[in-house]
Amino acid sequence: MFVLGLSSFLSAQEISSLMPLPQKIQTGAGKFLVNNNFKVALRGREDMRVKHAAERFQAALSRTTGIPLPPASDRVVPANFIINWISNGEKIQKLGEDESYRLEITATEVHLDAPTPLGVLHGLQTFLQLVEISPEGFAAPAVVIEDSPRFPWRGLLIDVSRHFMPVEVIKRELDGMEAVKFNVLHWHLSDDQGFRVESRKFPRLQQLSSDGQFYTQDQIKEIIEYARDRGIRVAPEFDMPGHTTSWFVAYPELASAPGPYEISRHFGVHDAAMDPTREHTYKFLDEFIGEMARLFPDQYFHIGGDEVNGKQWASNPKIQAFMRAHGLKNARDLQAHFNKRLQAIVKKHGKIMQGWDEILHADLPKEVVVQSWRGQKALADAVQQGYRGMLSFGYYLDLMQPASQHYLIDPFGAAANLTPEEKQRVLGGEACMWAELINTVNIDERIWPRAAAVAERLWSAQEVRDVDDMYGRLAKLSQRLEWAGLEHVRSYDLMLERLRGGTDVQPLHVLADVLEPVKGYARPHTKHYETSTPLNRLVDAVRPESDAARMFSGRVQRFLSKSMKPDDLSEIQKSLTLWRDNDQQLGPALQSNPLLQEAAPLSQTLSTVAIAGLKALEYLNAGVRVPAEWRQQQLDLLKQAQAPQAELLNMIVPSVQKLVEATTPE
Amino acid sequence: MFVLGLSSFLSAQEISSLMPLPQKIQTGAGKFLVNNNFKVALRGREDMRVKHAAERFQAALSRTTGIPLPPASDRVVPANFIINWISNGEKIQKLGEDESYRLEITATEVHLDAPTPLGVLHGLQTFLQLVEISPEGFAAPAVVIEDSPRFPWRGLLIDVSRHFMPVEVIKRELDGMEAVKFNVLHWHLSDDQGFRVESRKFPRLQQLSSDGQFYTQDQIKEIIEYARDRGIRVAPEFDMPGHTTSWFVAYPELASAPGPYEISRHFGVHDAAMDPTREHTYKFLDEFIGEMARLFPDQYFHIGGDEVNGKQWASNPKIQAFMRAHGLKNARDLQAHFNKRLQAIVKKHGKIMQGWDEILHADLPKEVVVQSWRGQKALADAVQQGYRGMLSFGYYLDLMQPASQHYLIDPFGAAANLTPEEKQRVLGGEACMWAELINTVNIDERIWPRAAAVAERLWSAQEVRDVDDMYGRLAKLSQRLEWAGLEHVRSYDLMLERLRGGTDVQPLHVLADVLEPVKGYARPHTKHYETSTPLNRLVDAVRPESDAARMFSGRVQRFLSKSMKPDDLSEIQKSLTLWRDNDQQLGPALQSNPLLQEAAPLSQTLSTVAIAGLKALEYLNAGVRVPAEWRQQQLDLLKQAQAPQAELLNMIVPSVQKLVEATTPE
Repeated sequence: MFVLGLSSFLSAQEISSLMPLPQKIQTGAGKFLVNNNFKVALRGREDMRVKHAAERFQAALSRTTGIPLPPASDRVVPANFIINWISNGEKIQKLGEDESYRLEITATEVHLDAPTPLGVLHGLQTFLQLVEISPEGFAAPAVVIEDSPRFPWRGLLIDVSRHFMPVEVIKRELDGMEAVKFNVLHWHLSDDQGFRVESRKFPRLQQLSSDGQFYTQDQIKEIIEYARDRGIRVAPEFDMPGHTTSWFVAYPELASAPGPYEISRHFGVHDAAMDPTREHTYKFLDEFIGEMARLFPDQYFHIGGDEVNGKQWASNPKIQAFMRAHGLKNARDLQAHFNKRLQAIVKKHGKIMQGWDEILHADLPKEVVVQSWRGQKALADAVQQGYRGMLSFGYYLDLMQPASQHYLIDPFGAAANLTPEEKQRVLGGEACMWAELINTVNIDERIWPRAAAVAERLWSAQEVRDVDDMYGRLAKLSQRLEWAGLEHVRSYDLMLERLRGGTDVQPLHVLADVLEPVKGYARPHTKHYETSTPLNRLVDAVRPESDAARMFSGRVQRFLSKSMKPDDLSEIQKSLTLWRDNDQQLGPALQSNPLLQEAAPLSQTLSTVAIAGLKALEYLNAGVRVPAEWRQQQLDLLKQAQAPQAELLNMIVPSVQKLVEATTPE
Repeated sequence: MFVLGLSSFLSAQEISSLMPLPQKIQTGAGKFLVNNNFKVALRGREDMRVKHAAERFQAALSRTTGIPLPPASDRVVPANFIINWISNGEKIQKLGEDESYRLEITATEVHLDAPTPLGVLHGLQTFLQLVEISPEGFAAPAVVIEDSPRFPWRGLLIDVSRHFMPVEVIKRELDGMEAVKFNVLHWHLSDDQGFRVESRKFPRLQQLSSDGQFYTQDQIKEIIEYARDRGIRVAPEFDMPGHTTSWFVAYPELASAPGPYEISRHFGVHDAAMDPTREHTYKFLDEFIGEMARLFPDQYFHIGGDEVNGKQWASNPKIQAFMRAHGLKNARDLQAHFNKRLQAIVKKHGKIMQGWDEILHADLPKEVVVQSWRGQKALADAVQQGYRGMLSFGYYLDLMQPASQHYLIDPFGAAANLTPEEKQRVLGGEACMWAELINTVNIDERIWPRAAAVAERLWSAQEVRDVDDMYGRLAKLSQRLEWAGLEHVRSYDLMLERLRGGTDVQPLHVLADVLEPVKGYARPHTKHYETSTPLNRLVDAVRPESDAARMFSGRVQRFLSKSMKPDDLSEIQKSLTLWRDNDQQLGPALQSNPLLQEAAPLSQTLSTVAIAGLKALEYLNAGVRVPAEWRQQQLDLLKQAQAPQAELLNMIVPSVQKLVEATTPE
């Protein structure tokens, strides 16, 4: 048996399927075979979470191996998977609750030990990831894992205001979160585009402000229970005083400018903001937060607080007078005044207030938690001022960045020089799925598997940051997530088939596989989007990150640095040939389809770029100089090919450019 | 506008996506565009089924087009999809209730009219099938459809005893059933291998006879409501007096031989049978059926009645004495005696008894319904004797027959010479999914899309029987079923990935795509299967019907009959080349995997067969004679290649054989 240090982590084939990577792994000899004799024993005080988890675990193991494992059995088999836990944990899952576990797998038995059910849940997921087909059948390698999270707050934000997501979608995402050990669903429940929770005190909120798309209180409870069963806290966000247009449709008296208001159909920063100068506002919020504080058991209550542009305040004379009377110099001071009042209300109802980094202001008590979206420095500032904070900057899944980029951003920051005490106040972070450009069909593809890179960043040791290794494990995880019920793979296929209208979809697949949506906020800058805009174009279907292009890039880099693997050259040639010939099949079909017409130039370019790549390869392999004119032409062409088309990028261009650049001109 | 007669049915491209095909179609001019202005109006007496259906319809339309269609809207748009129904139909959906509808689509409006909500449900599914991407966007062609089913009983039997299927699986299948207008879920709830319903009167049934795998009464009610919402009746089957081993684990006193009994782990006909001579048996059944009759609202109650081998009766002296005392000559008479008593009990609890064709006996009253599984003649016999009957012979999905075979079997039979009155007594039929060799992962693939061929047989006109046309529509339907939530496509991919252990799955796909499981009952004759046998081999993953082989066969036939389509020859060559080269990539991987080792000969054979095909093609294209010895060698080789291996058949062999046979020897 040998102990894996971090340096040797990445060589052990047995653990190549774990994500997030555990803190400590000792590999042993042999493997534990999963067969009909598999039997779980629960050795702790009765706990419904563990009971449910064990049932789901057994069903998942049966599904993923094809081995029948009925929940109960009259066959007398001794248990060989023994789960022990010490206490039943908190009635309401708490931030910082012990989530550690120890998983010992031998050739004959598995022991999963944990202080609380949370550790049991995590250990079960780790075991599921270890089971693979082996020469002896489905088995998990002998191993001892000691594991616990680096950060206590590991969240996924889902915005259900800009595009509503029904209960079954949220449940699906919770299943995915459980698989990668996320422990907080940050539920962004209200915004300018819709208010998504039934309020019994203020029913006009769901009646007038939701387009009929909201969760009943029963559904909220159902989701909270579902999440709790998976070790996940549900932290609600009601964004205020800005991002509140939808509230004002129902209750215009809350606004800083007279109504009437309509539910917003567009995106971006809105002017609408609550009136922080009227007592009525606080009376309303007191009642509303009281109701929501009872509905959502979690200790934290997110009040948003971002992106208040102050325009409504500036143009309201009463508000201006109030500011002068109270010595509030600017909108920022006024918002701090609002936040202070709000914090008292939140606290009165037994909760700890949380908000985006704009809320940071010396007037607020130190118990407030700051969520940084504008930069790593904002987080450092907050914790240096004595607040607790968490990172979301760098973890915005809607910006279509590669998993590697999210992966390498650390909550402690690259440059931040935090003391141990300050580091203690960094609670973790959250991946964020903002919903301007997603719907129920492509949400899974937008979140998964990339979110798992953030999950690993927040769970595993800071030193775990080998990108290639991460991608290898992410690919395996992606498949496991489909087994868990997520639809990120299948929905991609379905969306391409829908675009293609049912006929041969393969050539469209070849094109789509090398494309990525434009990055950052380039899409809303290219085209006007509203909530009613159909999201059924190629850009809505293609994956945020092209695996084909990434792998091609790796091969080209190895080729150019003379460190090729055996099949690199042949695969490069094969890919380029496929891309060269694809437009011949695909081109005509694109023209007859209104949703695909815009992709025709992309298909042509793919062919042109591939021809350039093949030619460059030919020159390089022959070791001869190339005509300078040809070389310049190709570089010009590749420069053009890098430009977005139909809000899409051709991701093989940079690699082909490297090939051309590597040639030597005559 | 022109009216389509049956003969011109198959040429209208607009309706090439309908399945089952409607009774009457008039195509019009233009098309109805689906966009943000889509709005449904319900014009009938309030009906929860229609309300739910309209909500699901709108969500499905939004999902499948990517166009946001919020359920309610404050925008004032006039409704353009108007649904009218006359009555709210029966409180409990009834056999023979009016299911007709009229769907009129113009360029500006859609009118769906139906006498009952059942017609509305069917019409909505028809509309969904008509929406496709067109040069103007997502649209349905202008058309008037008048439609009603040929038979009132169109069922799918799901056996949940031999392998249990949880609630979510049953719901998924109900979604598929709705899409193809099936209207009865025949739920096979008890058998030798398990009793699957909670009984409050006899709780030991679920406690001792189910391995913990059963539906609570609340879950049963949930399923019934879910089915009713989709226009589907739920007809329960409790198979007796045979197929009852599991009952006797809990209540051995019901049996004809002393216990104790164990839940059966194997398949086939068992000896266990209820004791038809003891009053206790009928007292028990009276109470049990009374409870189940209240739980299941449907008017029909299936008592099974199949495959009683009579062995327990023959070896029980008391039973033998009873038979002598009552003049019962043989087991058949004794079962008829039992059925007569049973029928009185079933009737007393307000239900009509139904059973498999073995129950047919002159002693039974004519209201009994006979389900024929042993042949079309059995059905003809029943209706000629005055009983009502339905066909399941020819519709057994577990036998792995192609869709075309099911499709061409008609409830009226090929030779049956039934009077109009007798035909009236043919209620319809049921596709049957027996569960010896399925689990929760591959059940969708085993049922779908083939079951849709049976659904069309039972809904559409008898004359609709063009197999090629059916396959074209089936392929489109298959994709729509994945949108509806079925997993027959995705689970195939997942199972192959599982077998391959996550690495490049493409070569395994190529092989699997041309294989089919052996037919009929060949699998249990090849290997011993029990309920605990893992169903994770290649044979459990491959599709019942190989589309690749079917399309290859079509091309080869056109090639040989000199009626080739433009790309037939190149596609034949491409396919054969792919198959020839596949083993080179796949072969080594198969050897290291215990679940795939058995497929190694199949992979080699695919290559050998493809080489023979390519060579034959070369000779045929060159128009030269072939060496007689070569030809004979190939024919011998192909004969060997037809033999099953690993319970799998290589489905391209017959086509390659035709190519070789078409050559002329020197």
